[in-house]
Amino acid sequence: MDRIDLRSDTVTLPSDAMRAAMAAAPVGDDQYGEDPSVNRLQERVAGLLGKEAALFVPSGTMANQIGLKLLTRPGDEVVVGEEAHIVWHEAGASAANSGVQFTVAGKGGLFTAADFRSAHKPAGHIVFPPTTLVVIENTHNRGGGVIFPQDEVVAICRDASALGAGTYLDGARLFNAAVATGRSLAELAAPFDVVSVALSKGLGCPVGSLVAGTREAMQRAVRARRMFGGAMRQSGILAAAGLHALDRGLDHLAEDHANARRLAERIADTKADIDLATVQTNIVIFRLPPPLPDAATVVRRAQEQGVLVSAFAPRTIRATTHLNVTSAQCRHAADVLARILAP
Amino acid sequence: MDRIDLRSDTVTLPSDAMRAAMAAAPVGDDQYGEDPSVNRLQERVAGLLGKEAALFVPSGTMANQIGLKLLTRPGDEVVVGEEAHIVWHEAGASAANSGVQFTVAGKGGLFTAADFRSAHKPAGHIVFPPTTLVVIENTHNRGGGVIFPQDEVVAICRDASALGAGTYLDGARLFNAAVATGRSLAELAAPFDVVSVALSKGLGCPVGSLVAGTREAMQRAVRARRMFGGAMRQSGILAAAGLHALDRGLDHLAEDHANARRLAERIADTKADIDLATVQTNIVIFRLPPPLPDAATVVRRAQEQGVLVSAFAPRTIRATTHLNVTSAQCRHAADVLARILAP
Amino acid sequence: MDRIDLRSDTVTLPSDAMRAAMAAAPVGDDQYGEDPSVNRLQERVAGLLGKEAALFVPSGTMANQIGLKLLTRPGDEVVVGEEAHIVWHEAGASAANSGVQFTVAGKGGLFTAADFRSAHKPAGHIVFPPTTLVVIENTHNRGGGVIFPQDEVVAICRDASALGAGTYLDGARLFNAAVATGRSLAELAAPFDVVSVALSKGLGCPVGSLVAGTREAMQRAVRARRMFGGAMRQSGILAAAGLHALDRGLDHLAEDHANARRLAERIADTKADIDLATVQTNIVIFRLPPPLPDAATVVRRAQEQGVLVSAFAPRTIRATTHLNVTSAQCRHAADVLARILAP
Amino acid sequence: MDRIDLRSDTVTLPSDAMRAAMAAAPVGDDQYGEDPSVNRLQERVAGLLGKEAALFVPSGTMANQIGLKLLTRPGDEVVVGEEAHIVWHEAGASAANSGVQFTVAGKGGLFTAADFRSAHKPAGHIVFPPTTLVVIENTHNRGGGVIFPQDEVVAICRDASALGAGTYLDGARLFNAAVATGRSLAELAAPFDVVSVALSKGLGCPVGSLVAGTREAMQRAVRARRMFGGAMRQSGILAAAGLHALDRGLDHLAEDHANARRLAERIADTKADIDLATVQTNIVIFRLPPPLPDAATVVRRAQEQGVLVSAFAPRTIRATTHLNVTSAQCRHAADVLARILAP
Repeated sequence: MDRIDLRSDTVTLPSDAMRAAMAAAPVGDDQYGEDPSVNRLQERVAGLLGKEAALFVPSGTMANQIGLKLLTRPGDEVVVGEEAHIVWHEAGASAANSGVQFTVAGKGGLFTAADFRSAHKPAGHIVFPPTTLVVIENTHNRGGGVIFPQDEVVAICRDASALGAGTYLDGARLFNAAVATGRSLAELAAPFDVVSVALSKGLGCPVGSLVAGTREAMQRAVRARRMFGGAMRQSGILAAAGLHALDRGLDHLAEDHANARRLAERIADTKADIDLATVQTNIVIFRLPPPLPDAATVVRRAQEQGVLVSAFAPRTIRATTHLNVTSAQCRHAADVLARILAP
Repeated sequence: MDRIDLRSDTVTLPSDAMRAAMAAAPVGDDQYGEDPSVNRLQERVAGLLGKEAALFVPSGTMANQIGLKLLTRPGDEVVVGEEAHIVWHEAGASAANSGVQFTVAGKGGLFTAADFRSAHKPAGHIVFPPTTLVVIENTHNRGGGVIFPQDEVVAICRDASALGAGTYLDGARLFNAAVATGRSLAELAAPFDVVSVALSKGLGCPVGSLVAGTREAMQRAVRARRMFGGAMRQSGILAAAGLHALDRGLDHLAEDHANARRLAERIADTKADIDLATVQTNIVIFRLPPPLPDAATVVRRAQEQGVLVSAFAPRTIRATTHLNVTSAQCRHAADVLARILAP
Repeated sequence: MDRIDLRSDTVTLPSDAMRAAMAAAPVGDDQYGEDPSVNRLQERVAGLLGKEAALFVPSGTMANQIGLKLLTRPGDEVVVGEEAHIVWHEAGASAANSGVQFTVAGKGGLFTAADFRSAHKPAGHIVFPPTTLVVIENTHNRGGGVIFPQDEVVAICRDASALGAGTYLDGARLFNAAVATGRSLAELAAPFDVVSVALSKGLGCPVGSLVAGTREAMQRAVRARRMFGGAMRQSGILAAAGLHALDRGLDHLAEDHANARRLAERIADTKADIDLATVQTNIVIFRLPPPLPDAATVVRRAQEQGVLVSAFAPRTIRATTHLNVTSAQCRHAADVLARILAP
Repeated sequence: MDRIDLRSDTVTLPSDAMRAAMAAAPVGDDQYGEDPSVNRLQERVAGLLGKEAALFVPSGTMANQIGLKLLTRPGDEVVVGEEAHIVWHEAGASAANSGVQFTVAGKGGLFTAADFRSAHKPAGHIVFPPTTLVVIENTHNRGGGVIFPQDEVVAICRDASALGAGTYLDGARLFNAAVATGRSLAELAAPFDVVSVALSKGLGCPVGSLVAGTREAMQRAVRARRMFGGAMRQSGILAAAGLHALDRGLDHLAEDHANARRLAERIADTKADIDLATVQTNIVIFRLPPPLPDAATVVRRAQEQGVLVSAFAPRTIRATTHLNVTSAQCRHAADVLARILAP
């Protein structure tokens, strides 16, 4: 029996068509700006996001770390939602790379403009660190794939600009937000100075993210990328996968979302705790109150039956749907999990 | 009319006797380890704290920043109480100087061993930053001068050691904690790897803090101090004030605490919000719910009547008692504030 | 007429066979350690270098930056040869990422054990930064592709160990050194704690380098890679190119070296300054004393005739041979350059 | 017999008059900007240097580290003279605190505008770190107290501005340069964006330096000082010593210079190597060619006869004259050293 891997939407394998596109990609030395596939992808993504320019980087983490570098200086404070990827999932990189300090606003990854203003500290205070950046993660991974309400995004970014702070969108799953809301990527990205999107999650590409913004910001991003060691050579091989995925379109993401929804509804019928309101895209997070077994045990038991999920915390599980799991597989996985959670 | 300055216990002016002690201090070049007054103070404070060695530094902020440098590496995560000085009052230095990220445990500056264990992230995880340090601030400034319960301190530090994390005590007001609890400085400091105390707060000295720990740690601290620019020359002039203050004894701190208590009880009779349970030492923090005026207004009105207090947040005031305000002055200040807060 | 691109050995395009290998590569999510192609490449390179483990990273710069992170702490001093890649070609990353300071030993990229000992500063000094690492670049790019004499490597690393300093080999062109000297990669790497090699230079792969060392060091390297944003997903696509290149063997590098030698000898007959003794591998660096035109002019004139070379400094040119230029093309390029340089 | 301490001009002890000035100093909490002695000193030094504002800091190292913070960003390159204090004597702080990389121009601490232009790397290059700052140390400590020729200073700073780079003057011994050249401090400081001077060297104060520049730069310097832990409280005690020293005048420095000159001429008659041309102020550096004993031995033998000098390198000695050594003492020290060096 094939295993059903719901640990992350990063586990997708490139399709044969995508592999063929990569194998046929025209390439060049991207450090000289001469890789035609990279250049095409960068222009295309910049266009989709409504920004002047975009830059291909090896990972969403590097995109985020470059965003921080571009928009802060060491000693600055950055407002983030609870359990942001940039705080929890980047191995402590942000303070190490850019010397910034985070302050958390709101709950469950979302926050309001009022939360932001309350968290904001002005420059020029005797002792406080100045708030120079707000980071919004949309959709928000540890918040359960929840979509950041666009009205609030607009209000927060307006307040940030008024207060002299920059704005960064961690859009590792922005494609999911666009499909789920029916809004364009450009609309979702419009309020932000710098934006990232990932190819290696819902789009099913093997490697890569892009960061986008003004042409001037992207020129500085080229240097930041080089400093992190993310400047590659014939990376058109990877960019070609991104172009292929964009050609294919984003419709399949709606199916991922429907699969996640059905899985979540099934979990809601068990003894696990799940907030169905947060299940808006392709991520399902649920908690395991006693006497349910802990996350490590649930992961192990599911794995024994061919279903892989992630222990997100000692009593928290994450399951993620993606291009490589069918509706039928998700139904089967739901059966397996339901048996474990409602014995 | 003399102003009554309750903005901070850092505003104290050296007494004539302290000035005389400074003027008469034997001194030498401390970077060669040849300042006899510095050496005496370092030995004395190390003894009081029950540590092998201590090092004189220009400020409590530098003591804290050195503590972080000694006990972490860039990319590490540090558990702190809510609104810790090291997070809020050091201008964002911690991430800039040491590349560390904070995670907040508990409420009001205090947290339990369970809170700590829950915040702790293990080394070796794929993506999480490893927790390598816990910082306890005792008494806790923004928590209202509250004393960290020693049983919890012991339990947290035991858990930290078991989990391989270091322990740092921000003891800028440890003298207050000692006087208020009747515990010795050595007992309060015993659970920690590295400890700081300040001379320029309750003790009434013009300048200086000390950091203490093992002899090996203090040798590394000498270098960290030099890297921050805190290595001074004939600093025995300053150390002499510390020796004088220690000779004088700590009894006057009990009076500061009584003054703060009386002031707080008076505030509690107004329309301001105050949690009397937190008023355990020399700090009084209260909030200004509407329709009371905001903090800036209260600060201004009190100042017009010769009473200086601090706006700690848009609707929060801090008043601090110290060696340079008498009980009578504190009563007068309470009258002034009560009139403003209960019109 | 096809252009002859001698700007760098990084410009090589993957062959059809290499593309086919990439397209067929078994892959998985490398952040879970599940990419079989990456795992095979890492094991193979570790074996070639005689190290316990190796880690795939997106670039030689990231390999170097990880090496620094593993072997230093902020405030340390690192001994390097003149004009090392890690100093000149990584956009200032080393100080920004790891907080280290460089001190230069020797001339032309090479230095002796005596040079190293003379540059070394001991830990525990009052004011000096401690020397904790020596970096050797072999072959040395800006030194003209010169091979670091292995006897000196052994002596320097022995002295470094005796003085408590770590040792790092920037082996971006170590394959060239191995082919030119007839020594095995393992012999060249043996004296070092941590070693890197690049796939995207002489081997002709599109992307990637590896860093190698003890298993414990490579576990820490996994985290450093994640912090820089170099952790990728189905990177087996890229690793497969590396495996293909290693299967093909290194013999073609000898031809690159012969091509470079012939080119250099031709340049030596012009008015340009070239030190033929340094032309030991695939790099040819020469200087343009007046009345020769400056580097920008020479680059432009050569380009007009279809030959691309690099302006390495205002009056310095670098030409590099590689898998994508034939002996005939190199001879033609030599003709073009000779006409420009000996008018 | 009293020891004659020529190790450094930092070893001076405050005179009785200076101690009295300190004891009588009006003080306040400098973090609120309320210390009248600090304010007076800052205004006075700003005036002397011809800058808008100045800031009191605990040490010359902190002044330098603040200068770097103000004028660079992580990843930048900084041009310095050989063996600059900021590179050699600050424990590796510069890269750790500000993430900058140094490149050395010239010889013996001095360099020309041509040297600077040759070392300068432009922003926007693919791989080079951008040069954003030039640091001049005047007088230059490890260069033997040599004065940086003012014509060259002017030319370097003009070129730096034209190239978009900032300019910083490490003026730890700028008072010596002013006295030796007859130029005003303001003239020496005029070409620079940010300037430092030290009180604890030739002026004989126990503690402190000042950094000066535009009002805007000094506002940012306040924050940088706080981040390093250099913000103090009633530091007017220390500032008063500075005011006293400035009142006393700088004439005694000329005597220090004459004493150093006589000492150097005496050394020149021994078997030691000394470049008399560099002995322009209060520092005497000489080398010990075999068969002379090494520096550690010379230090020890001199110490046995009551003369303290510094081992600056394994075979290099530094002797420094200052306010606390008389001409007679310097003559005696010269006798002692001459006997050791010309046996």
